[in-house]
Amino acid sequence: MKLTAQETGVYAIAPTPFLPDGQVDTRSIDRMTDFYEESGCRGITALGIMGEAHKLETEEAFDIAARIIKRFSGPVVIGVSAPGFVAMRKLAHFAMDQGAAGVMIAPVPSLRTDEQIVAYFRQAIEAIGDDIPWVLQDYPLTLSVIMTPTVIQRIVTDNPSCVMLKHEDWPGLEKISTLRGYQKDGSLKPMSILVGNGGLFLDFEMERGADGAMTGYAFPELLIDVVKLQKAGKRDAAHDLFDAHLPLIRYEQQPGAGLSVRKYVLQKRGIISSSAQRKPGATITATAKAEVDYLLSRVARVDRRANLQPQSSAAG
Amino acid sequence: MKLTAQETGVYAIAPTPFLPDGQVDTRSIDRMTDFYEESGCRGITALGIMGEAHKLETEEAFDIAARIIKRFSGPVVIGVSAPGFVAMRKLAHFAMDQGAAGVMIAPVPSLRTDEQIVAYFRQAIEAIGDDIPWVLQDYPLTLSVIMTPTVIQRIVTDNPSCVMLKHEDWPGLEKISTLRGYQKDGSLKPMSILVGNGGLFLDFEMERGADGAMTGYAFPELLIDVVKLQKAGKRDAAHDLFDAHLPLIRYEQQPGAGLSVRKYVLQKRGIISSSAQRKPGATITATAKAEVDYLLSRVARVDRRANLQPQSSAAG
Amino acid sequence: MKLTAQETGVYAIAPTPFLPDGQVDTRSIDRMTDFYEESGCRGITALGIMGEAHKLETEEAFDIAARIIKRFSGPVVIGVSAPGFVAMRKLAHFAMDQGAAGVMIAPVPSLRTDEQIVAYFRQAIEAIGDDIPWVLQDYPLTLSVIMTPTVIQRIVTDNPSCVMLKHEDWPGLEKISTLRGYQKDGSLKPMSILVGNGGLFLDFEMERGADGAMTGYAFPELLIDVVKLQKAGKRDAAHDLFDAHLPLIRYEQQPGAGLSVRKYVLQKRGIISSSAQRKPGATITATAKAEVDYLLSRVARVDRRANLQPQSSAAG
Amino acid sequence: MKLTAQETGVYAIAPTPFLPDGQVDTRSIDRMTDFYEESGCRGITALGIMGEAHKLETEEAFDIAARIIKRFSGPVVIGVSAPGFVAMRKLAHFAMDQGAAGVMIAPVPSLRTDEQIVAYFRQAIEAIGDDIPWVLQDYPLTLSVIMTPTVIQRIVTDNPSCVMLKHEDWPGLEKISTLRGYQKDGSLKPMSILVGNGGLFLDFEMERGADGAMTGYAFPELLIDVVKLQKAGKRDAAHDLFDAHLPLIRYEQQPGAGLSVRKYVLQKRGIISSSAQRKPGATITATAKAEVDYLLSRVARVDRRANLQPQSSAAG
Repeated sequence: MKLTAQETGVYAIAPTPFLPDGQVDTRSIDRMTDFYEESGCRGITALGIMGEAHKLETEEAFDIAARIIKRFSGPVVIGVSAPGFVAMRKLAHFAMDQGAAGVMIAPVPSLRTDEQIVAYFRQAIEAIGDDIPWVLQDYPLTLSVIMTPTVIQRIVTDNPSCVMLKHEDWPGLEKISTLRGYQKDGSLKPMSILVGNGGLFLDFEMERGADGAMTGYAFPELLIDVVKLQKAGKRDAAHDLFDAHLPLIRYEQQPGAGLSVRKYVLQKRGIISSSAQRKPGATITATAKAEVDYLLSRVARVDRRANLQPQSSAAG
Repeated sequence: MKLTAQETGVYAIAPTPFLPDGQVDTRSIDRMTDFYEESGCRGITALGIMGEAHKLETEEAFDIAARIIKRFSGPVVIGVSAPGFVAMRKLAHFAMDQGAAGVMIAPVPSLRTDEQIVAYFRQAIEAIGDDIPWVLQDYPLTLSVIMTPTVIQRIVTDNPSCVMLKHEDWPGLEKISTLRGYQKDGSLKPMSILVGNGGLFLDFEMERGADGAMTGYAFPELLIDVVKLQKAGKRDAAHDLFDAHLPLIRYEQQPGAGLSVRKYVLQKRGIISSSAQRKPGATITATAKAEVDYLLSRVARVDRRANLQPQSSAAG
Repeated sequence: MKLTAQETGVYAIAPTPFLPDGQVDTRSIDRMTDFYEESGCRGITALGIMGEAHKLETEEAFDIAARIIKRFSGPVVIGVSAPGFVAMRKLAHFAMDQGAAGVMIAPVPSLRTDEQIVAYFRQAIEAIGDDIPWVLQDYPLTLSVIMTPTVIQRIVTDNPSCVMLKHEDWPGLEKISTLRGYQKDGSLKPMSILVGNGGLFLDFEMERGADGAMTGYAFPELLIDVVKLQKAGKRDAAHDLFDAHLPLIRYEQQPGAGLSVRKYVLQKRGIISSSAQRKPGATITATAKAEVDYLLSRVARVDRRANLQPQSSAAG
Repeated sequence: MKLTAQETGVYAIAPTPFLPDGQVDTRSIDRMTDFYEESGCRGITALGIMGEAHKLETEEAFDIAARIIKRFSGPVVIGVSAPGFVAMRKLAHFAMDQGAAGVMIAPVPSLRTDEQIVAYFRQAIEAIGDDIPWVLQDYPLTLSVIMTPTVIQRIVTDNPSCVMLKHEDWPGLEKISTLRGYQKDGSLKPMSILVGNGGLFLDFEMERGADGAMTGYAFPELLIDVVKLQKAGKRDAAHDLFDAHLPLIRYEQQPGAGLSVRKYVLQKRGIISSSAQRKPGATITATAKAEVDYLLSRVARVDRRANLQPQSSAAG
């Protein structure tokens, strides 16, 4: 199954579970993969920024990619961003050989001008080959690379194998409208737009024309429900459900600290065994845990999936 | 009335109202000042970043400062950040002569190391004099200057006239806890901490030890209520009210675009006559206005203050 | 006399002389203006970055501009870069009324994408009017705004009143060649290119097609000679003279520290009375002074203009 | 042979030679290693930024490190900077097992505050072990991490295995004086300071107390001579020789473009067979080659080592 420009739904951005000693936690990877499957995720994206991919050794990255691709029945996208094109090519080819649906590429943070950005992606696709469907990641807050709609248009036009945008500019609502406008007037080919940023604007992003979400909020079920409700035209219901989760979504979307919150909730849900991150990484304080617990209890008033039992063996 | 380290409550960050042709709108300034007074704001902070201070001529800035100070019965803080200390000193002295309670100083964006930051504030206070109470603005997202708790401790210890922190780091919850911890162990003198960032984390910031808010969310009444409820120990009620506004707070807190949302709501509320910004500035699209209108209608289900009539003469 | 696209020669970037107490030193301004006149500078550019313009009060800036324009017989360019367009317009109109030849505008540091940069200059020219000849300053090292040749082409095409580029990208040789290539193929209108960066690449920049220099090296005579020799086709002689100064040029071109070196040499030459800078600013250590003295003594072996007497009353 | 705080002399920063098709050019590696040996370099530093280390696959990097360590008789330092500590540890242990004298670590570009920087190096040394002698790389222009003398002092004091500073701050003269001052007053332990930046300030850096150079200027013989002359107290002779090379040193020190110049000269010298860089990388134009040729001819008037024959088979 190859990624196409018609993809919709929710792709979970998979964190990489570690044991408290820093080892990759393969049993949690399997449990997490099964959880995404059962919860209705259309796809999984592994080895992204929130997957701590840059902290993995090459072999570890390959093993994780292969493991998830093999276990998950739907499309799996592998993040192949790398400082050098040789490493990018190697991981991309490995992933596709294993059965990945496509790869995801983020710009390197040093890029500044429109021309530098466009040239970078041209060279990247020369390196991996133009027959691998790929996702363009647009994440200025973390990567500090700003891609205007015009630049995205140029990249996509230059590289027909780009079939999807992982949209996480902030603010980004007008950007979606602009890109969809380009498609209406024929100046941009069709492509899937899945939104990120932890889902912080998913409610309106769907109304602006997004096809779904590709992000790692610890309740992918919520993302799935909001996407479905919006597609069904049930606007108020979509916002009602979204708003119930928004206090937690916002809390999880704190730069630098968010992954520790996300892993803590996934651990509480019994999906991963530890909230540990590899160094350098943030830890979550007892006060923050209590705040998350409080937020969960409030979400649970509306969405019983957030009704989590206290963890007797919380290791995170 | 001089600013002290015991300040609590809500200071409204005042936008600068402009007429559609770019002129300063003095009638709206007066109406806005009265609105803040009547809505229960403890103070007003004028000429901050969201006040478009950098787009004002010197004389305009002086006139606006004088006008608000004269009209408002409570404490007024004047933002005096400037590229040069001569201009900073002149505005600070003018403001205090007019009756301001204190001034606010943000670091210049070029500062990087701890020592550069500490030296900058020492020089700034040498320039304005050490007898003017002042607010330290900590706003890394916009200013790109990162002040650790240790650096804030050094600045405040070096400069006893610093009596307040405008806290808008993001994430910032642990920072408040750390600073309050310093005060408990005696390594930091008492100071007021008012939080910014449009109020996006006001709910938990109050629980971490904030004294109130200094921000410009278009419903200062909400900020006032949340501060009061949290101080009264009514946690659930505080969160219930806060959560009802959170979808709009989030929408208003979009970098670059937020001020246009804020001015649009203030205009809808009849407080300012136009949502115009001086160039360079963002404008708000019709789609975004409709989204804000929808959010307001949802807030109004819980908080009738958001039940705004459509503007027949919406000029913004 | 209005600035045109045919300008050649050397424009001195004038520092702003201060007395040790921080007051503007008007007598030194006059002496410096006369010095530039006598040394053969084609023009003077005042209130630039190295003129510490951002540390001046509005009235001080106006007075300095008027003073130099009145005294100097050749064209004077006034730097009008400002955070807001209202202030930019006011200074630009004042300068032209006083008899300036044109104004210089640098991009604000927050600009990132090609479109933001192009839009900024369009708005700036809307603000000051399209009838004032202006110089586009391209100085990425300090301003952190990167303008590709394509962007410069768009700005100049959009704004016919742009007649000159102050080129100080680094590296920048290929940029000059590219822009001159655009002019040859007719895709860029004629414009003067004067180079900055303290002259660090003046030798080759002239060979690439620059029309001269606009920079503040403490020996403008050297810049003038190199420009003349290169225009006369005396390549080796140009490099011989340039190379004799290069150790000092390099020393003066240290970011942050360079202005203190430049002012120290100008003081030694008897042109300004003090090397003082307004805070925040760098100071020059005794060791650095001795290093500069040593470099001057070495330059003096080839260029007797560098044969400076020790200052008995060195105040800087 | 392990790196100690007493190291002096010149360490060549080795580029990684590639064939025009992007393959690692092992024969050129050997020839280059022999050249450094014969020219009198004290040591070699491989896999640094100018070694395009980030473009290498893990196995390639390991092979290059092993090859150079085995062939070179003196101390070899291996750059082990990596986004993750697992990869850093693995390469560091491999290098030391192969006989490296030590490793070099640069801060990751995202570090901003003093505390972040200090914490990063503490975690890095925890990861690789505290028994491997290492070089702290201080290169703000490229890495955008600013380490004050105080921060360097903290890092070195926290981590006794740090025995050397690769100093390439710019400006950096006062920094050397400050660090040497710390050592005089006993607040900093002894450590070697070798300077980088292509040697652009080597003349004065030696006078400020540097122990030598660690940089990749294409004439390491010049660096060696200047270091020797300065150590012998022959100041004028040192500057005379240095100044003869300075026009070329400056030309090679252009950010982004410099490596293509360096490789071009090394190719002309017959040391490497191609000036090719792996993508993304700069290329050198015909005009730039002619400029370098001209500079070489001028250097050759003083230093016959620069008297290079035209390359009949210049592939770069």
